[in-house]
Amino acid sequence: MVSTNKQTVIFNNKPTIIGNYSIGGPLESKGPLKDYLSYKLEDDTLNENSFEKAERKLLEHIIFGAIDNAKLQLNDVDALLGGDLLNQIVSSSFAARKFGITFIGLYSACATMAESLALGACLVDRQVFNTVCCATASHFSSAERQYRFPLELGNQRPPTSQWTVTGGGATILSSKGKGPVITSATFGKVVDFGIKDVNNMGACMAPAAMDTIMTHLKATNTKVSDYDLIATGDLGKLGSEILVDLLERKGIKLGQNYSDCGNLIYNKQEKVFMGGSGSGCSATVLNSYILHKIRNGDFKKVLLVATGALLSTTTSQQGDSIPGIAHAVCIEGEQ
Amino acid sequence: MVSTNKQTVIFNNKPTIIGNYSIGGPLESKGPLKDYLSYKLEDDTLNENSFEKAERKLLEHIIFGAIDNAKLQLNDVDALLGGDLLNQIVSSSFAARKFGITFIGLYSACATMAESLALGACLVDRQVFNTVCCATASHFSSAERQYRFPLELGNQRPPTSQWTVTGGGATILSSKGKGPVITSATFGKVVDFGIKDVNNMGACMAPAAMDTIMTHLKATNTKVSDYDLIATGDLGKLGSEILVDLLERKGIKLGQNYSDCGNLIYNKQEKVFMGGSGSGCSATVLNSYILHKIRNGDFKKVLLVATGALLSTTTSQQGDSIPGIAHAVCIEGEQ
Repeated sequence: MVSTNKQTVIFNNKPTIIGNYSIGGPLESKGPLKDYLSYKLEDDTLNENSFEKAERKLLEHIIFGAIDNAKLQLNDVDALLGGDLLNQIVSSSFAARKFGITFIGLYSACATMAESLALGACLVDRQVFNTVCCATASHFSSAERQYRFPLELGNQRPPTSQWTVTGGGATILSSKGKGPVITSATFGKVVDFGIKDVNNMGACMAPAAMDTIMTHLKATNTKVSDYDLIATGDLGKLGSEILVDLLERKGIKLGQNYSDCGNLIYNKQEKVFMGGSGSGCSATVLNSYILHKIRNGDFKKVLLVATGALLSTTTSQQGDSIPGIAHAVCIEGEQ
Repeated sequence: MVSTNKQTVIFNNKPTIIGNYSIGGPLESKGPLKDYLSYKLEDDTLNENSFEKAERKLLEHIIFGAIDNAKLQLNDVDALLGGDLLNQIVSSSFAARKFGITFIGLYSACATMAESLALGACLVDRQVFNTVCCATASHFSSAERQYRFPLELGNQRPPTSQWTVTGGGATILSSKGKGPVITSATFGKVVDFGIKDVNNMGACMAPAAMDTIMTHLKATNTKVSDYDLIATGDLGKLGSEILVDLLERKGIKLGQNYSDCGNLIYNKQEKVFMGGSGSGCSATVLNSYILHKIRNGDFKKVLLVATGALLSTTTSQQGDSIPGIAHAVCIEGEQ
């Protein structure tokens, strides 16, 4: 064998998005995407006594919502694919407990939505499963106290920091039915440019996004202008600018059709500094705004490039740099 | 659609184990499987200045070892599938950084080896990838201080506790070549019998093992006696007894061909109480003893049922019970 390493998979059997659901937290529900959300939270505790339990409940709600939106029953869904930011992906594992179906636990930090869609599309396209549910969520308050400081401490946030989205989304992929279609996917490699600043995630993840976008364009023989939208996951304002610069040096110019889910989800007046982040960020934006625009024909072809920073508090405390990964899925309008 | 939920996948294109590698820590290298290990560690720090970095280096060593054992070059391997017990699966993500190939991050606690093999077999069987590497590891000392107490504290261990294996294994699956073959896999559901004792993992995971074994036998129309070995991942002594009891009540009798990787890896004289555990437990035993016995013809058909306890320290501190999951792969001799 002299094959080079493979990252891109082309789907010929049209794994179809037959249903989806999104929830935004109180802040996200006041943002620019509010009209596209399936459900808006007024209370980010969801009547639970911890933020971790609230995140779990949010995820359960999203999964039920997507199955319902696809007009399916629970036993029509072969498998649930997902993960989240909490240690040992407990939000997803505990949510999966409610459903009693095959659970394939994943983790790529904030790239988990695209990882689950890419893998789900492989499994549906190649007839391993007929129908799968891909889901992830995050919660500002559970992420803050796990990764940073307890909220009660009232710590200042540096200007390069981002804001973990309270929200999430689920997508139902099926070998049958009508809807937008996943036509290809590019799995990411772990890329590390040596950045150690845990308050500058965008900079850590931008090189991975560059790598995956370049790989995807080459493997699918497409160019930037072929897409109505290229959306990175949660590079935020600074990370997006870094990505634009990095790609420009490689001769690839991102244009008006480039956006970042972390920039789309909040207004400028919210004190979220560089914008949204978290595994729920791209999941929420995909399953509200993006899929709506694909369904109504505004977008014919979208490349979602979710980005993840693969650190833990331990690796940062031990002086490690922060590796990034980006997984991409190409979604096209009903065919 | 009136299909019921699907868990079992049959592989017709013979995803073949063309290489594997295992490492055991100093304790594991004195145990009953010592002669089957690819490499025996004398120093569990691997010359690193933290146990977390030692675990990462161990995993890098295992992955390189398996690729070498399969007589491949790095760019012959399309993707690396794996995860580990550390928060945000940092051992796997950071190890993946070394290889520059597609990385699909997974998490099912101590069931991760079987999850990666089941998923890897799907992707190879259905021609998404030609060759993948499935790998996981664990380290006693990094697990102790993350999940329990710093070793320096010298805490007593309750009699139902298990001992996280320092070790791991990697398996190369390919659509071409010669070797043992994965013929089917059963993905697990999350099963929770309400047990809250974090020092009795075997009891938490036994119901999930029961569920997956019953599902697998039914879906593949096989019986216990069709297998030369049915090996659970890390139920340990007590968990194995619970599994035997649970299955007997369902009319399924596990016989002499049943064993548990957590029981196989240590001698009785070691103070490991109920036996081995950790994501490295089934990974080490599979990639040493089990694959050796399949290759030399002693075992013709083996069912590996790796088991995982899907808790985090946060869920236990918040009073949650401990859900379990078990993923199974059926491995048969060269065909």
